Amino acid sequence: MAPALPAPAPGPIKCKAAVAWGPNEELVIEDIEVDAPHAGEVRIRMVAVSLCHTDISFLGMVQAQFPRILGHEGAGIVESVGEGVKHLKVGDHVLPLSFPECGECANCKSEFNNLCEKYVKNMKELQMLHPIDQKSRFSVSKAGETQQIFSFLTSIFSEYTVVSEDCCAKIHEDAPFEKACIFACAIPTGFGAAWNTVKVEKGSTVAIVGLGTIGLAVADATRIAGASRIIGIDINSGKFDLAKRFGVTECINPKDCQSPIQKVLQDLTNGGVDYFFECVGKVDLVEAALESTREGSGKTVVLGFDGSCRQLSFNPLLLFGRSIMSSVCGGYKGRSHVPGLVDKLVKKELFVDNYITHTLPFKEINKAIALLNSGTCLRCVMTMG
Amino acid sequence: MAPALPAPAPGPIKCKAAVAWGPNEELVIEDIEVDAPHAGEVRIRMVAVSLCHTDISFLGMVQAQFPRILGHEGAGIVESVGEGVKHLKVGDHVLPLSFPECGECANCKSEFNNLCEKYVKNMKELQMLHPIDQKSRFSVSKAGETQQIFSFLTSIFSEYTVVSEDCCAKIHEDAPFEKACIFACAIPTGFGAAWNTVKVEKGSTVAIVGLGTIGLAVADATRIAGASRIIGIDINSGKFDLAKRFGVTECINPKDCQSPIQKVLQDLTNGGVDYFFECVGKVDLVEAALESTREGSGKTVVLGFDGSCRQLSFNPLLLFGRSIMSSVCGGYKGRSHVPGLVDKLVKKELFVDNYITHTLPFKEINKAIALLNSGTCLRCVMTMG
Repeated sequence: MAPALPAPAPGPIKCKAAVAWGPNEELVIEDIEVDAPHAGEVRIRMVAVSLCHTDISFLGMVQAQFPRILGHEGAGIVESVGEGVKHLKVGDHVLPLSFPECGECANCKSEFNNLCEKYVKNMKELQMLHPIDQKSRFSVSKAGETQQIFSFLTSIFSEYTVVSEDCCAKIHEDAPFEKACIFACAIPTGFGAAWNTVKVEKGSTVAIVGLGTIGLAVADATRIAGASRIIGIDINSGKFDLAKRFGVTECINPKDCQSPIQKVLQDLTNGGVDYFFECVGKVDLVEAALESTREGSGKTVVLGFDGSCRQLSFNPLLLFGRSIMSSVCGGYKGRSHVPGLVDKLVKKELFVDNYITHTLPFKEINKAIALLNSGTCLRCVMTMG
Repeated sequence: MAPALPAPAPGPIKCKAAVAWGPNEELVIEDIEVDAPHAGEVRIRMVAVSLCHTDISFLGMVQAQFPRILGHEGAGIVESVGEGVKHLKVGDHVLPLSFPECGECANCKSEFNNLCEKYVKNMKELQMLHPIDQKSRFSVSKAGETQQIFSFLTSIFSEYTVVSEDCCAKIHEDAPFEKACIFACAIPTGFGAAWNTVKVEKGSTVAIVGLGTIGLAVADATRIAGASRIIGIDINSGKFDLAKRFGVTECINPKDCQSPIQKVLQDLTNGGVDYFFECVGKVDLVEAALESTREGSGKTVVLGFDGSCRQLSFNPLLLFGRSIMSSVCGGYKGRSHVPGLVDKLVKKELFVDNYITHTLPFKEINKAIALLNSGTCLRCVMTMG
């Protein structure tokens, strides 16, 4: 038998993508062209994607450049691999991740750091793709003219995307794509804050401000860890019923309180909570969190990012045995740790059905945006069809 | 044989003490009277005491009330016990501690909190004694008039002091008093910051600002933990030779640098130190520390207290996986943990000779103050004689 011929080098591919043409505009499903993966990259056929508030926030940035393909929470199958790819092959099931892991840098080699040095600048700029040439792999042709489409994190609102293999967690083949997709961001971010950044222990008292998907993932993880009180805080009381399904034991709407939230929590817990998770991204909530935690041991965990440029400012005497800790992607290393988390889904040790409040076909992505903005939706999972 | 008569109830005792009569005045060795221990208290005959910067700082507070007996780092022998004392008997060797442990409150019962709730208000006000009646046990008579002497922490600059038994660590009888005394504050504060508040691991990179006794105890502890680089920072280069005896591997005087210390450390360590210990008590140093630590995992440990009322203020985006942690008395519980630390001295697992740069008789305490102010002294241990 003649030896098998090597697979032909992949070329560009034409497909559909949801393109953002301008700030706050509706996305438009366009025919686009996706480059072949360059060296060290893979091209992925997306199977299921979900929408996160970060995508919507970015869509609202008037100073951002357009056209752009958003999206960073999805699951798919490797369609082709670029030169020198070591860890993946065609057909692998993967999650493209915003927290890559080259495996070689000092941070990747450290047990305690999940910010790959090769990509940390890209992470901060929300431009995960292509650290070598800093170019998008997407283009669109209109009226005979071809223009580049900017990328955003892993740009998974496209039937195909291209990312470095460093950004890919290879997951179990039995993991259903429409559930696994939320393991690309929400689940590790929330769970890792409770399990890695701090290790919430049995009997602890927890407060969580911001009862969106991330906040509820924190609640879920602290419930599993055995927290005895999980106090959910949000200015939208409409979220409270759903929150209780994730382990939240009591809910507070600061708008209904006579005193500042730190005073309410100090009184309610006889001296402060053990852990306060800030999942909104407002510095005044971080400041309130610090005062809401127990003197001598309380930990404030900051998950949200405040884009307001306001300084975080407090009396240093408030520290007195307290800590402020920041959690980025839950402290998980993408390639090393996320597959194990997905394994828990496969083994039915983790249940994520409650997070997926809505499903839609991908082409109805604008409806998903409206749902998430309405406050009634946690995750809307879209299948590419 | 007739049964032994119960020991007579102790009465007041007359002894010598170093009394501070006014802010920044020289201390005066006076004949004073020390009350008998009240219920739950013990009276201790001090054997060896040492001087800490906190004593001197307090002596300089113009708004403080005088006369007062300072001192909080000493070792002695229980001379008499008050009613209902459970854990101590006459003759026990003890360290009177500024971080008490009632053993009953929620914080004492927590594995993670060393701020006994019964005393935390007293700790903050630097008035450890007598939480029940909030009165000093010391008085002095001058020209026929008796006046109360205010206390400060454990007020051990007296031949006898009275403290709650909650404030007493019972130590091994073989521990030499003149070395054990520094285990009442400096050693647990420095060692615990490195071993408890954070757990410095083998190979880590450490920066320490403030190369006094606390800073050098941190250096010592991180050296024992296996830190590979221990960078000592001080504006007094005269401290650098001594610092190297404690494990400091390189020294920086910010006054000699062209760039801010955070830039110098970022460059020197290729991205920031793993741990930064702030042992001075200045918020601008805490702010610089945050930027000096490694993004994604760096920990700033705050040991110093800043009395300036300045807010700690920084851009929250600087957090990005970094933490700020506060360490009070090294996170050690006084009665439970300090005896074990002293055992290491007895077993020759810990050596503290390098900390004791000077010794003097107690009556020369003003000379000790001058020595500590000169910057050439770490600990001056005084024996009561």
